Order: sequence, then C-alpha cells, then structure tokens
Amino acid sequence: MSGKYHDTGCPIAFGLDSFGDRWSLLIVRDLMMWGRKTYGEFLNAGEGIATNVLACRLKHLEEAGVVSKIQDPENRRRNIYSLTEKGLDLAPLIIDIAIWSSRYDPNTAAPDELIKKMNKDRDAIIAEIKSSGCYLIPPESGK
Amino acid sequence: MSGKYHDTGCPIAFGLDSFGDRWSLLIVRDLMMWGRKTYGEFLNAGEGIATNVLACRLKHLEEAGVVSKIQDPENRRRNIYSLTEKGLDLAPLIIDIAIWSSRYDPNTAAPDELIKKMNKDRDAIIAEIKSSGCYLIPPESGK
Repeated sequence: MSGKYHDTGCPIAFGLDSFGDRWSLLIVRDLMMWGRKTYGEFLNAGEGIATNVLACRLKHLEEAGVVSKIQDPENRRRNIYSLTEKGLDLAPLIIDIAIWSSRYDPNTAAPDELIKKMNKDRDAIIAEIKSSGCYLIPPESGK
Repeated sequence: MSGKYHDTGCPIAFGLDSFGDRWSLLIVRDLMMWGRKTYGEFLNAGEGIATNVLACRLKHLEEAGVVSKIQDPENRRRNIYSLTEKGLDLAPLIIDIAIWSSRYDPNTAAPDELIKKMNKDRDAIIAEIKSSGCYLIPPESGK
C-alpha cells in the first residue's frame, strides 16, 4: 500500500490504496483467472497497458504484499509473479466484480457457463483459487 | 462506463470501467455505508478529494447508471444523490473490500463488531443495503 491517502482507518480506503486502481486489479485478474505470470504476459493481455504503468503497478502490488516474484529458473532475466495469500484473498472481490458485470454488461464476453457457476458456486470457485493459486478460464473463452 | 478501455468483453474490465477507481468507490461507500447524499458531504468525507475530481467522478457514476440525482426540494441549488439498483448491487463488493482490509490492515478503524457481522452475516448486510438503500454505520464508529 502506498500510504498516500490512507489516514482515516477506513477499511474501504485501505483496500483501495492496496489494489484499487483499474490496472492493479486487471493484473490480479490475469494471475488469478488466466494463469499469466510474467511481465510479457501481463503486457500482452489485451487491454493495452503501457510498459511504465505495468512496471509501476507490479511494484506497488509487490510492496503491498499482494504479489510476489521469483527469478525464472529457466531464464534468469525473467521474473515469475504469483499471488500471495493476501492476493489470493482478493478472490471474492474478483468474483463479485465478474458477477456484477455479467449482470450489467450487455456485451459481456464471459461464457454463460462460467457466469452461472460464479453465481451458484461462488464459494467453491474461491476455495479452488485459494487452494491451487488460480481458477483457470479455458483459453477459448471470452476474456 | 467510459467505454475508454473496455473492448475485450472481460467482465472484470467492464466493472472497473464503471466504478473502478479509488474515488468512485469511496463515493459509493459514502452513499452505502454513511448515508452521505450531497456534493458537500462527499467533499468533507475525510479523504481530501479535490472538487474537480469529485465532480468528474459523480458525473461518471451517473453516466454509468450507478448513482442518480434529484434536485433537493428544500434547496434548489443542491442535488441529492442516491445509489440506483445497479449501484446497490455493488454491496457485495464493498463488503468484500472491508472484510479483506480488516484482515490485513493492522490500523483499521473498523469496529470489531461490524467486522464480525460482515464476516458472519454478509448476506444479511447485503440484503439490508438492497432493501433500504444503505447500511448505516453508527457515526461514532471508525470511518
């Protein structure tokens, strides 16, 4: 967390200081739902994040304890990112955003089956994310 | 929603385009948990939002269908804001942020009793927000 704004003790403000900008939560989504793990994968995720913004958000998420990184043993110039327990605990939030949007976005690309599962088995999806580190959407599904 | 970024159909991106910046969600919090309803009340909520940012976020939330406004019958120069059904449907998200933050913020000002209730009776709080338009935190509690 930046500590930049948070001085009221409000738990909503604390959360938003830790992960609460659009790009940060899209990086969390990439890790949680798409199994993306590297700078290059985040960069090419489709929403057009700028390189400097991506680097900044990854650093912030790391400082906030939401993601951690290790050096890729197969390529020492590359880092592999993953969600910490604190990051995995954002699963309910990510699922709730998806449920809300599937209700209100007439152009949603989220597959019907996934939306139904999120509405019906929210807790099961959260449990799977927390136990296996992600809940992978089949690659042919909408982004 | 701005439509500025959302072109992938991703439900997470759609949500974040609609409400996904720090100030927008703090305005939703003010309406949902503190019963704040006017520009002046949002402005003085304690986090120091700038007037131009507040005006911009209120306009965006209105365009996204998350909040609506009416003229105050007692003061025609003032608007009264409220959450639409679409806005009230953000209740699970707001509760999840508060639960997450109460777990990870050592300095949280959220009252123990409220945190316990959020963890235990999440669905009841959401139902109350949806039926009465807000879930008022006692004024003496932490912000």
